[in-house]
Amino acid sequence: MKTYLDCIPCFMNQALRAARIAQADDHQIKQILDETGALIKSISMQSTPPETGMKVYQIVREVTGVHDPYYDIKQEHLEETKAIYPELEKIVKESEDQLLTAIKIAIAGNIIDLGVNKSFDIVHDVKAILKMDFAILDYEAFKKRLSQSEDLLYIGDNVGESVFDKILIKAFNRPVKYAVRHRPIINDVTMEDAMASGLDEVAELVDSGCESPGAILSQSSPEFLELFNKADMVISKGQGNFEGLSSCQRQVFFLLKAKCPVISEHIGVEEGAIILKEHKI
Amino acid sequence: MKTYLDCIPCFMNQALRAARIAQADDHQIKQILDETGALIKSISMQSTPPETGMKVYQIVREVTGVHDPYYDIKQEHLEETKAIYPELEKIVKESEDQLLTAIKIAIAGNIIDLGVNKSFDIVHDVKAILKMDFAILDYEAFKKRLSQSEDLLYIGDNVGESVFDKILIKAFNRPVKYAVRHRPIINDVTMEDAMASGLDEVAELVDSGCESPGAILSQSSPEFLELFNKADMVISKGQGNFEGLSSCQRQVFFLLKAKCPVISEHIGVEEGAIILKEHKI
Repeated sequence: MKTYLDCIPCFMNQALRAARIAQADDHQIKQILDETGALIKSISMQSTPPETGMKVYQIVREVTGVHDPYYDIKQEHLEETKAIYPELEKIVKESEDQLLTAIKIAIAGNIIDLGVNKSFDIVHDVKAILKMDFAILDYEAFKKRLSQSEDLLYIGDNVGESVFDKILIKAFNRPVKYAVRHRPIINDVTMEDAMASGLDEVAELVDSGCESPGAILSQSSPEFLELFNKADMVISKGQGNFEGLSSCQRQVFFLLKAKCPVISEHIGVEEGAIILKEHKI
Repeated sequence: MKTYLDCIPCFMNQALRAARIAQADDHQIKQILDETGALIKSISMQSTPPETGMKVYQIVREVTGVHDPYYDIKQEHLEETKAIYPELEKIVKESEDQLLTAIKIAIAGNIIDLGVNKSFDIVHDVKAILKMDFAILDYEAFKKRLSQSEDLLYIGDNVGESVFDKILIKAFNRPVKYAVRHRPIINDVTMEDAMASGLDEVAELVDSGCESPGAILSQSSPEFLELFNKADMVISKGQGNFEGLSSCQRQVFFLLKAKCPVISEHIGVEEGAIILKEHKI
């Protein structure tokens, strides 16, 4: 997905939010905004939003010296989601269509605001999401592809949500490689976070080599590119990965919530819609 | 009021919105955003937001060549508000406290979204606003000062709202000078707009010399400064004028709606609150 004009003020908002999460002082925040402002001129409208996102968070890191501003938030999300994991597994086991329920739970992780809710409420929210309809649900194509695949690549998104991914990967009952970011960026899942999520119990963890908040093939490692090109089936989780991969040259199943007006208009759904979309070549 | 860090992404949003209203093409919009981004470094956090606002809208004008992007919107607002003027006058005349009702009507002009509503709905909205409570209402001080004043300065805000100001100025029943912006900036009232609002029938119109979307004394004409300093009573309308004048060295009565989280936190009221506030020296 290319960068839209509306993404540009959003980069400034993200810079401000990330600067505050990194506990920058006012002087540092102004410097971060100055540098992000100066960056705008260099943004190509043909680039994908995560490419700029990476640069914005790089500025935050450089100005504050904080390597992983979202560390505490990520730990909190891990703790909260791991606490309810058994209950979510139970919901899947007791459901009629276990795969679809697991898909919905995986996307629920992308929806609920873990920072605000307590454990009990998360379960409540997940149950509400299970009743939601997908705006796009290419479920038949997904099931068909899954049944023919012996080698799956699952590209992870946020920490917390990663615990929910575990449930879906278990439901696949097939060999899965789970790709993570090369280094901390926003609250995206890294190797360390994937281990803490328990994903190593159900998948082989692989480093994408990518440092942007959304997979970008031109910035991934050659090893990841080979996996991406050769996997029988690729599942991409979340908005950032969609932004990075939506024009790629292979079939991908995108699982995401359309979290902003730009992406929802791009896809042609309502803002907030949940989607399981087959990207065909 | 000084510039807050949260104002900075807002300047980018304003640039984008104004560029679109000026019907800039995508290439021009990107240039406007580039230049606004580059401007950020030069913003002093001690300056007031309208000072930067002025520069942002200057960029929009220069890139698009459109002198008055909001012209059509202003004409529409004038037409809509003038159509309901007689009915609003009737509401004032039939009310128990005519001055307070006229104050509420004047602030109603700042609240209702004229672009969306039709004439009938505006009257409906005004009636709803008449029932609203002010978060700050320094009405006794206002009345006392008014009774002692023979020479009032009223600093105008937006077009459309300006028609509602006429009702309040009539209720003063005293000589009033109505100050306007020196040139078109957003939808702020200029000399031409004030005439079209019929304000020349109830007040002497004066050019503030100011080109920013909020009165800034350091950028006003010497003639306006003299009026401002010598007037028995100064009434400042709207958020932009508050931002520019809230640290000034004379008594001012501010009449506004707190339209964004920054200003509402600055004043200490809820977002959306309506205010008649005496600024004391």
